[in-house]
Amino acid sequence: MSDPGEQMHALVRRLHPICRSMTGDGVRRTLEIIAESIPLQVHEVPTGTPVLDWTVPQEWNIREAYLADRTGRRVVDFADTPLHVVGYSVPVDATLPMAELREHLHTLPDQPDLIPYRTAYYSGTWGFCLSENTLKELQDEEYQVRIDSTLADGHLTYAEHVVPGERAEEVLIVCHTCHPALANETLAGIAVAVRLARSLAEIPGGPRYTYRFLFAPGTIGSITWLARNRDRVGLIRHGLVLACAGDPGPLRYKRSRKGTAAVDRAAGYALRDREHRGKEHTVVDFTPYGYDERQFCSPGFNLPVGLLTRSPNEGYPEYHTSADDPDLVTPDALADTLAAVREIVEVLEGDRTYLNLQPYGEPQLGKRGLYRSPSLGGDTKQHQMAILWILNYSDGDHSLLDIAERSAIPFAALVEAARALTDAGLLAEAPEATGQATDQPSAPGGEHP
Amino acid sequence: MSDPGEQMHALVRRLHPICRSMTGDGVRRTLEIIAESIPLQVHEVPTGTPVLDWTVPQEWNIREAYLADRTGRRVVDFADTPLHVVGYSVPVDATLPMAELREHLHTLPDQPDLIPYRTAYYSGTWGFCLSENTLKELQDEEYQVRIDSTLADGHLTYAEHVVPGERAEEVLIVCHTCHPALANETLAGIAVAVRLARSLAEIPGGPRYTYRFLFAPGTIGSITWLARNRDRVGLIRHGLVLACAGDPGPLRYKRSRKGTAAVDRAAGYALRDREHRGKEHTVVDFTPYGYDERQFCSPGFNLPVGLLTRSPNEGYPEYHTSADDPDLVTPDALADTLAAVREIVEVLEGDRTYLNLQPYGEPQLGKRGLYRSPSLGGDTKQHQMAILWILNYSDGDHSLLDIAERSAIPFAALVEAARALTDAGLLAEAPEATGQATDQPSAPGGEHP
Amino acid sequence: MSDPGEQMHALVRRLHPICRSMTGDGVRRTLEIIAESIPLQVHEVPTGTPVLDWTVPQEWNIREAYLADRTGRRVVDFADTPLHVVGYSVPVDATLPMAELREHLHTLPDQPDLIPYRTAYYSGTWGFCLSENTLKELQDEEYQVRIDSTLADGHLTYAEHVVPGERAEEVLIVCHTCHPALANETLAGIAVAVRLARSLAEIPGGPRYTYRFLFAPGTIGSITWLARNRDRVGLIRHGLVLACAGDPGPLRYKRSRKGTAAVDRAAGYALRDREHRGKEHTVVDFTPYGYDERQFCSPGFNLPVGLLTRSPNEGYPEYHTSADDPDLVTPDALADTLAAVREIVEVLEGDRTYLNLQPYGEPQLGKRGLYRSPSLGGDTKQHQMAILWILNYSDGDHSLLDIAERSAIPFAALVEAARALTDAGLLAEAPEATGQATDQPSAPGGEHP
Repeated sequence: MSDPGEQMHALVRRLHPICRSMTGDGVRRTLEIIAESIPLQVHEVPTGTPVLDWTVPQEWNIREAYLADRTGRRVVDFADTPLHVVGYSVPVDATLPMAELREHLHTLPDQPDLIPYRTAYYSGTWGFCLSENTLKELQDEEYQVRIDSTLADGHLTYAEHVVPGERAEEVLIVCHTCHPALANETLAGIAVAVRLARSLAEIPGGPRYTYRFLFAPGTIGSITWLARNRDRVGLIRHGLVLACAGDPGPLRYKRSRKGTAAVDRAAGYALRDREHRGKEHTVVDFTPYGYDERQFCSPGFNLPVGLLTRSPNEGYPEYHTSADDPDLVTPDALADTLAAVREIVEVLEGDRTYLNLQPYGEPQLGKRGLYRSPSLGGDTKQHQMAILWILNYSDGDHSLLDIAERSAIPFAALVEAARALTDAGLLAEAPEATGQATDQPSAPGGEHP
Repeated sequence: MSDPGEQMHALVRRLHPICRSMTGDGVRRTLEIIAESIPLQVHEVPTGTPVLDWTVPQEWNIREAYLADRTGRRVVDFADTPLHVVGYSVPVDATLPMAELREHLHTLPDQPDLIPYRTAYYSGTWGFCLSENTLKELQDEEYQVRIDSTLADGHLTYAEHVVPGERAEEVLIVCHTCHPALANETLAGIAVAVRLARSLAEIPGGPRYTYRFLFAPGTIGSITWLARNRDRVGLIRHGLVLACAGDPGPLRYKRSRKGTAAVDRAAGYALRDREHRGKEHTVVDFTPYGYDERQFCSPGFNLPVGLLTRSPNEGYPEYHTSADDPDLVTPDALADTLAAVREIVEVLEGDRTYLNLQPYGEPQLGKRGLYRSPSLGGDTKQHQMAILWILNYSDGDHSLLDIAERSAIPFAALVEAARALTDAGLLAEAPEATGQATDQPSAPGGEHP
Repeated sequence: MSDPGEQMHALVRRLHPICRSMTGDGVRRTLEIIAESIPLQVHEVPTGTPVLDWTVPQEWNIREAYLADRTGRRVVDFADTPLHVVGYSVPVDATLPMAELREHLHTLPDQPDLIPYRTAYYSGTWGFCLSENTLKELQDEEYQVRIDSTLADGHLTYAEHVVPGERAEEVLIVCHTCHPALANETLAGIAVAVRLARSLAEIPGGPRYTYRFLFAPGTIGSITWLARNRDRVGLIRHGLVLACAGDPGPLRYKRSRKGTAAVDRAAGYALRDREHRGKEHTVVDFTPYGYDERQFCSPGFNLPVGLLTRSPNEGYPEYHTSADDPDLVTPDALADTLAAVREIVEVLEGDRTYLNLQPYGEPQLGKRGLYRSPSLGGDTKQHQMAILWILNYSDGDHSLLDIAERSAIPFAALVEAARALTDAGLLAEAPEATGQATDQPSAPGGEHP
């Protein structure tokens, strides 16, 4: 099983049965399994800690939950799938008439085979989720109801994994960890992030940027991380939230609030470049509804963090139902998402702004061994054209990505030509301030945050 | 007859027979009738008064005019329609051979049933307008010609109606009053303006802006008004010229010379929004040919004044002919124009730029009673989305109109959500300087004029 | 033969047989023939002169060259066409076995009838070009090979022709002179330039700009000129490189690196305007591959120099082959290119930015004899509209070209209306700094020295 797609799919299958929520042991168990692949720094933040405009909630754990009929048969059982219990349900142990119980039962009448995913965060209630078909079979007048849960002071748990780079500036990769048994929506992104982290660690000499992976519950997890890292968010140069990352639908990139941040341009370029190879995609503008990019892109932080999905949230019929299971996720789709993220990362890593050191007329390439007639065609022509484009546009205002977009020469060919020109003494990296990505972190308390 | 469309149509019918021109008693009579619906301040500016590059002309009045054949029969008679006499015709009382008379007769050979509209401003000549068919019947060798008109020192007459608002800054609504018997071209706009003025006066507490309605002859009237109000044009925040406002053609907005003034954006938004409800429209860029926007948008003033018409000038076959009569105007079209103007006004009135007071991460809406699950759909989802959009984009750089354009959420829903967020202490109006519409009037003698 | 197209074609035919290269007597002979039509200042720059990053190469001359079979028959002979010898071939006089000779023979297997054009600049080798069909007939085991050439210290030759204008600022027209026997690629542009120069000299009082025509070998010639004129390139306001100027394909303008320079806008306008008359064209963005615009648009100079061709380099099957002969060039195409260049020049010459001296309201045109009713249609309406457009947009920010683009009124009609308004005292030319084309040369060593 050395195929990366299969390996990611195996991780999705293994994590799938675990009952995750905003907090609790299911999250911890998930992080333990991730830590088998990449080392994690796990953070436990106590209940009641103020985090931005929020407060860390009580921790929720659950051991058992079921509805049983008068014969004692468990007609709905948490043991079958954690989706059966509304997240953060308070404990209950009672026999209730169907009329009263009914208000606590959630189904999807339009998808009668499927169990919905529901939560009762911050509400102090309880409930069961079941299929409409199962509901129809519940003909008894009363049922035994049991939820053996705990809602008590404890901790919110999240984890970080860092791949150190040449520079302190960071690329942030964010996955949410708070959903039970949603294979595509939650787990596919985690699987892709784990493989990405491993591949970055294999780069000789390390990547240029430092890569920070954040595995945290949605919304409150990002808010907690932002509250605890407020002084250093200026280090974040680029960021990607990964979700819904394993279904066969086409990739979809949602731009950061900035809209033209380097990550937006790199993702747009990489996805367009893949489209030339027959891989469809869509790119959409930022909207303040989705995943954790909402927090990173709140106006006070306004960080360059986009969202990469395949079928987006609410964009596929299995979304937030029991049908979002490992069968919806394919090894090929996982591998494709990983490949796309790596292409985005390659652009972020490789983009530089150079200065032509002989900007008056074209330098004589022949005397430096850099000239080969473009009439030879193919890669030779492409290389020669890459040299001409870089020389002409390396005026401090155009990065390699700018030149790639303008010239339609593949980014990798430009990177190679820039190296040849640098070796020949014709090119030098421009002072950082003029480039796409600067290595001067914003001062804490500066523009952002 | 409480239907607004019917009421406006009745006003058009009542005003239609009056002989209006640049000056004269027909204009005064028109203003008297308008003043039955809304109080008017009538201005009389003496002949010879210098106004910008122009001079107020002599006043023209006419009592009788006809062509009579040898039997004394009036073959063309001003009493039938004021269009029969070329505007500003000098008096004449003679019997002329047809050959000589012919040079003073105007017809439309391509529309042989129709009488054209012609003027002889500033030229000291005279003439009759008649249908080509009538002309063909004039077989006598000579005709008695009589125009009992007066061209003498007097006044140029125009009127203003003001609906006071919370602020001194003004919205200017302009209608021309100088055309005889052109129902759509001239009178429909007047009828819409009158109804708009009445509806603005009914707003509890008054509108936010002060609304100034100007009823004046085209070109020279606006020039006179501008000359007399040069020190206060800086108060004009938004403006609309109304003409050709009652035919069944689709609405057409011509942008101000500024092109992206608030009124241009508000009109564009309102008309696009109406298009979603199946109402076609067009929006075109400013051109220096049309109605009084030419004067307000001359480069020295460059005021944010657009033009709203249905079929534009020269854009319908009845334009400037006797067929532009009350039958061309429909109550429905008048009501539709009024509705569109009111929607534009609602955007101008409602547009604000806010600041999110909790800009770091999303504020916790639940603890403020502002959270309802978007999965509930419909208006609840729209309201929740409106809240998220406003919070995210209220950074001082985006007004509600910006957010409406970006989010496709109806403007009214954003106004409501902004109110809820303001009540919850999460939102405050941004200092005026950063918003779309400032309440600081330009200093007289400043940028404009 | 007074037809300009025929005259240009005659010049192409006359220049076609000459063996031109980077240097040498063929270039000198070409310039002598041009000088029969327009006076030239010929420059001779010694071998070894440093020019920017390059060095002026040795001069190459050739007297005779052939391949002869064992019977002494010349199977490939330079006397038939200079294309038969690879440019800058070193001398050779030997009998070589076919196997060894073969490495020095160049053909076009996909175009077996045609002889390719090849050079061996800076390489110290030699070669012959022949058709694939001729190659197949070379069945002998060995051939006599003779190239009687000289590669020795000498000069690089280029020439300038200047049409003095009212101003010192220049329009630069560039043609390359370095290719032997390529009628469309090289000679058509020269023929058009010669006719253009003659027509500019016929303008009464001279043109507004000074026009400098440069006839120089490609790349090294421009580099030499730039090196020798580095202190005065700031005088170049607009520039055009002419090449591939006589085939029947549609015109194609390649923008300067600036992209929106006045010459880019003028060429775009003129070509769009011609398209209204049924003449197709294309406009493309700058790329750093093509003709001498590469040197003028290198980032250190960044001059506003575009490229006008018909079928572009590499864009027609005869390109750089013996089929690029006078039959490929048509008198009509030459005349059409000349007409287009003249239209571009007319826009450059005529474009001005004016100030409306009566900017508050429309000035009263009637009292100045400038008003004629637009309802008269045709040219009268166009003239009246031109007056209104110029008055409204002459605020110092819009030139006549801006107004032409915005109004769709022909440029020439705007020039005429501007003259009428100027004569009436309503318009004055704006201070140069705000216009499209300034007459303040950049200081040497300034932004682009």
